[in-house]
Amino acid sequence: MSYTVEVRIELKKGVIDAEGETVKKSLNLLGYRVEDVSTVRVYVIELEAESGEEAVGEINEACKRLLANPVIQNYRVTVK
Amino acid sequence: MSYTVEVRIELKKGVIDAEGETVKKSLNLLGYRVEDVSTVRVYVIELEAESGEEAVGEINEACKRLLANPVIQNYRVTVK
Repeated sequence: MSYTVEVRIELKKGVIDAEGETVKKSLNLLGYRVEDVSTVRVYVIELEAESGEEAVGEINEACKRLLANPVIQNYRVTVK
Repeated sequence: MSYTVEVRIELKKGVIDAEGETVKKSLNLLGYRVEDVSTVRVYVIELEAESGEEAVGEINEACKRLLANPVIQNYRVTVK
């Protein structure tokens, strides 16, 4: 069966979010009262699996191997 | 008051998602039965506003002016 899972990858606390900082400064320059911007990378993945748990398990493994850097990023995998 | 809003920016249908394609190919090479990967850019924004609606309104405007490219991207702003 085909499952759609969503991987949400965020920077860990304390890791500098350069893109977020740049967006914040740009929004401030345009006059918006923005206090903080953080960026999140999301992958929406369609894959073949026997069950939702198997799909999440496979993509969790894929995050460790390829998609996320566990030194600086947290990730969460959910079935949609 | 301070509000946290989330902006979710996706590519429109028919626009080629180069990063998603690359991730899909890499996952296939690692043996995962992935059929499609699409990438989504999320900004989590903290800002000062009088109400949730004002916060969403301001960030919707900011999307049009700066954050999203309406020719190729769809975006959605929600209060968290």
